[in-house]
Amino acid sequence: MSPQQPIEPAGRRLAILTEGHTEPVRGKTATCLLRYRPEEVVSLLDSTQVGKTAQDLLGVGGDTPVVGKLDDAPDANTLMIGIASAGGRFPDSWRPVLLQAIRSGMDVISGMHQFLCDDAEFARAAEQSGAKLIDVRKNDEHEVANRTGLREDCLRLHTVGQDCSVGKMLVAMELTIALNAAGRDAKFIATGQTGIMVEGDGCPVDCVVADFISGAVEKQVLANQHREIVVVEGQGSISHPRYSAVTLGILHGCVPHALVLCYEVGRTEVHGMPGFGLKPLDELLKTYEHMASLQGPCSVIGVAMNSRKVSAAEAEDERARIGEQLGLPVCDVVRDGPADLVAAVEKFRPQAVAT
Amino acid sequence: MSPQQPIEPAGRRLAILTEGHTEPVRGKTATCLLRYRPEEVVSLLDSTQVGKTAQDLLGVGGDTPVVGKLDDAPDANTLMIGIASAGGRFPDSWRPVLLQAIRSGMDVISGMHQFLCDDAEFARAAEQSGAKLIDVRKNDEHEVANRTGLREDCLRLHTVGQDCSVGKMLVAMELTIALNAAGRDAKFIATGQTGIMVEGDGCPVDCVVADFISGAVEKQVLANQHREIVVVEGQGSISHPRYSAVTLGILHGCVPHALVLCYEVGRTEVHGMPGFGLKPLDELLKTYEHMASLQGPCSVIGVAMNSRKVSAAEAEDERARIGEQLGLPVCDVVRDGPADLVAAVEKFRPQAVAT
Repeated sequence: MSPQQPIEPAGRRLAILTEGHTEPVRGKTATCLLRYRPEEVVSLLDSTQVGKTAQDLLGVGGDTPVVGKLDDAPDANTLMIGIASAGGRFPDSWRPVLLQAIRSGMDVISGMHQFLCDDAEFARAAEQSGAKLIDVRKNDEHEVANRTGLREDCLRLHTVGQDCSVGKMLVAMELTIALNAAGRDAKFIATGQTGIMVEGDGCPVDCVVADFISGAVEKQVLANQHREIVVVEGQGSISHPRYSAVTLGILHGCVPHALVLCYEVGRTEVHGMPGFGLKPLDELLKTYEHMASLQGPCSVIGVAMNSRKVSAAEAEDERARIGEQLGLPVCDVVRDGPADLVAAVEKFRPQAVAT
Repeated sequence: MSPQQPIEPAGRRLAILTEGHTEPVRGKTATCLLRYRPEEVVSLLDSTQVGKTAQDLLGVGGDTPVVGKLDDAPDANTLMIGIASAGGRFPDSWRPVLLQAIRSGMDVISGMHQFLCDDAEFARAAEQSGAKLIDVRKNDEHEVANRTGLREDCLRLHTVGQDCSVGKMLVAMELTIALNAAGRDAKFIATGQTGIMVEGDGCPVDCVVADFISGAVEKQVLANQHREIVVVEGQGSISHPRYSAVTLGILHGCVPHALVLCYEVGRTEVHGMPGFGLKPLDELLKTYEHMASLQGPCSVIGVAMNSRKVSAAEAEDERARIGEQLGLPVCDVVRDGPADLVAAVEKFRPQAVAT
């Protein structure tokens, strides 16, 4: 798939596979589709949660039902894998339902590193039924960054984080929507499979060949800088034991003017790596600004906290405390809305770039 | 090719293609093969320099001749592409000589991103002649880093740099050789195509899928940590507009105890990117230490200067000046030998790692 090619045909009706993981972190692809493309989602597919609703389990999606088998989602014409997995491989236990969908002629959309179209059995079944296998991460990026042609009249914003799965995509999306609602012409630039599934374009940066990470991101910026503002989704964390390369490649590929630092209240360890403590926010803020500034002047202008695991009162305390500590506006874009971040963007004046 | 599989069969006799670029920077693959595997090199192939010797043009390789066509290297049984190119693609003008070699049954070794074996015409010719097409960068790395099982009784050294093509591979290689000569059991870990071509194993990190960069490097360390010391070759630079992601992925994948900072005397701009100034060494040193220390305690213990473009007297001045400025041993491993770096390693005592 070309990263510029829209991936959602008109009339897509999705069953989203979240088997065993219909919760906001592992099921973040499902959650984001329900949040931003609710009209497309017919049902969630999780045999362990039959009878519940998306709202019950994910906090979004209203009455969208959880069903136990594909036959219970007769209106769906597309099966989407709605779970993120470390390493991006799917378990063998998913094969039967994937095969059933393909054989019935449903398109299948996957954000896994393990490509559906490279699987001989899936490919054969798709050829027979006419189903399309859409591997969102598949790409052929092979251009290095050149750092030529960047326009300084397009404001480049970028969401960065303390860890994976803290809400960098959601914050970028909400900020883009709010900026547009405020009359600015802003474009969300997706850098991961979920963002691409929602937005319909972008680049699956974590699946790009290493030498071309920054080049692939630069290409997205160049293609969209006729807009007033681009909001580039971040990935991983600059301190992540696994994914820091991806994080830095995006940071140096989009040469941001300003950053929004994202974190989850109460998280102390790296997601999926028990025993690995997270770095303090103030240290990370300085590290992000320093690393970004190797390419051009850049400041963190706001903090997005994800407070889904704490009460409203605790969230307010945290918001005040972190705002005081870092001297920056802080908000939970879901709980509080992104107005404080929009105000920070409006107030921000980028420094001139000197190479 | 599996990264662990040796790539040099016994009896390899190389013609190295350096057409138009028989000079130390663009022709660094050729230069390194001549330095470390001189017995394997039959000739260089460059129609613009016929009649000269490797020593004339590259400063190594003695009387190894430069010939203008493959027919003038009848003893060679393998053609190696000896040039690095930004983006890793070869020009169309190389097709005839590559095809001639393949058709004559010679194996062809390439470190390009553009794989020989994916080229229908080359693949067909190889099938007919029995020639092997060896794409050193081809890999199937798909494991994330886990940071489990690292042994603290194996010292992890890593060469990092101010820029591409300043000598990180050469320094790692020379330091490894010198450590072994001093009675230590050290292993060079190649992370780029040239290192792999010389060493026979390693991982082509710049061609690994982004999510797995650190995992691929970790795998190399785990496979070699029964040795007393591993010396991991660095790539690019932490401040490089194109390749910083690769640099950080290696830094966080090998979790080094100690770094050697490499630079070229007199270079002021990013290699291949005129107008992009290099960051000062002292700033880079702090940046590398800070970024490495996000994963574990790490110090720069020495500086390797590449002084090939200046006189012996200028090199001595520079060595004293930088040593004074950074408070570290400085040497040119070619001009001075690596003794000062070996001494720095012997003196070094790693701090205990706490996650």
